Amino acid sequence: MSVDAETIAFANRLADAAGAAIRPHFRQRLAVADKHQTLQGRAFFDPVTEADRNAEAAIRALIEREHPADGILGEELGEKKGSSGRRWVLDPVDGTRAFISGRHEWGSLIALEEAGRPVLGILDQPVLGERFIGVNGAARLQQAGDVIRLRTRDCPMEEAILCSTDPSAYFNAEEQAAFARVSRAARMTRYGGDCYLFAAMALGFVDLIIETNFHPWDIAALIPLVEGAGGVISNWTGGPCNDGKQILAAGSAALHAEAMRLLKG
Amino acid sequence: MSVDAETIAFANRLADAAGAAIRPHFRQRLAVADKHQTLQGRAFFDPVTEADRNAEAAIRALIEREHPADGILGEELGEKKGSSGRRWVLDPVDGTRAFISGRHEWGSLIALEEAGRPVLGILDQPVLGERFIGVNGAARLQQAGDVIRLRTRDCPMEEAILCSTDPSAYFNAEEQAAFARVSRAARMTRYGGDCYLFAAMALGFVDLIIETNFHPWDIAALIPLVEGAGGVISNWTGGPCNDGKQILAAGSAALHAEAMRLLKG
Repeated sequence: MSVDAETIAFANRLADAAGAAIRPHFRQRLAVADKHQTLQGRAFFDPVTEADRNAEAAIRALIEREHPADGILGEELGEKKGSSGRRWVLDPVDGTRAFISGRHEWGSLIALEEAGRPVLGILDQPVLGERFIGVNGAARLQQAGDVIRLRTRDCPMEEAILCSTDPSAYFNAEEQAAFARVSRAARMTRYGGDCYLFAAMALGFVDLIIETNFHPWDIAALIPLVEGAGGVISNWTGGPCNDGKQILAAGSAALHAEAMRLLKG
Repeated sequence: MSVDAETIAFANRLADAAGAAIRPHFRQRLAVADKHQTLQGRAFFDPVTEADRNAEAAIRALIEREHPADGILGEELGEKKGSSGRRWVLDPVDGTRAFISGRHEWGSLIALEEAGRPVLGILDQPVLGERFIGVNGAARLQQAGDVIRLRTRDCPMEEAILCSTDPSAYFNAEEQAAFARVSRAARMTRYGGDCYLFAAMALGFVDLIIETNFHPWDIAALIPLVEGAGGVISNWTGGPCNDGKQILAAGSAALHAEAMRLLKG
């Protein structure tokens, strides 16, 4: 099932619209609302900004005008059922905590699902001018007019760079123990990063990403990106992960299998 | 003791030289050596790359040619005693782990000390084109021809964004407990970042930074930057921190005092 050039161009226009809505808000004094989530039974600050809401509204307006039969699932503005068999899955600012901290490791996530499977994914970082795209079995970085074909790195566990945004907050005790087993086997472990970790994996510089408590909009766009670059991405037991929850991404099939074995304990 | 324009221009040239040496290596396949450190009694991967070594060599060559009486202390190439009363303190790539992961949160740190006190500090991120400078009681960001005056944010503890690169690796058990007391009081805690956290503080988006196990070259350049932006930076008990070890930086004096009280327990 290949995605046609017109659809790819439309997805790029959605990313352009999101970037235009977000860029003016970066490093400005923002009103930050708290969505008052709980996580692992504790109250958990869940920030959302005007940048998130404006960007999602901009994307949705374009879809509703040009492809009104498509479904939409967005982090901030919920679900709109469609009738075309296609659904757009959106997280306009993934990494809001980095965004409100004036840091760069955030991005706009735009996925297209057909028959329940993500077939196109964009991670756009409009301040860095980096757009990562996975579609039709390939992944590339578009930056300053250049298009760079992306490949993950193939390396053994003892040379692997492992990343996770924040196991101390997002993982329960059992998940933390499982993560620690992989961390002890890998060469280096590093925190922070959100969606940007998957860009670094597609670039070939991060080898393993382990996350949990993901929502569909946190991951859908990143699946075609990682797979298109030659990586393997699933939940912790090897099943599909586009519904979120536990995520395991690796630069190669062998590393993925080894990490899954260690997670199992 | 004010730093003259000629010295500031020379420090900028050092940062230019470091950037020119580093930029070609970012996101290239690098030979990564391990300095085989131990930390908290465990073996600890301590990467160093050609980018680190080349950049420090480039800076040192300029200092030795134009200011041969100045002392130099660099992370990679050690100490050279001087006779001028001035010493340059250098970490050409602070955040090597982020650098080798293809991420952006690293920078070149260049400090000038006079009479044992840092009087000028540069944090240069040559890929982002951001240069943060603290000198003569002010801090600014130079980017794409613009010069932006920097101010930290003044906020109460319950609204504070707290950052630390990796307490799970760098802090001992007692330090982790102290950190957790501040983390519980702050609004949000975020990991990763290295020197870039101090840039985010000077920009007014990160309010508290708590670190330990720092070396002089990890912190000297960041002291004039934080202080010039209106923040307060010291060790955990309020003393000078330019020798490294435990670091506490805050956007305001009140927040610094409150964090110090919580660290004490």
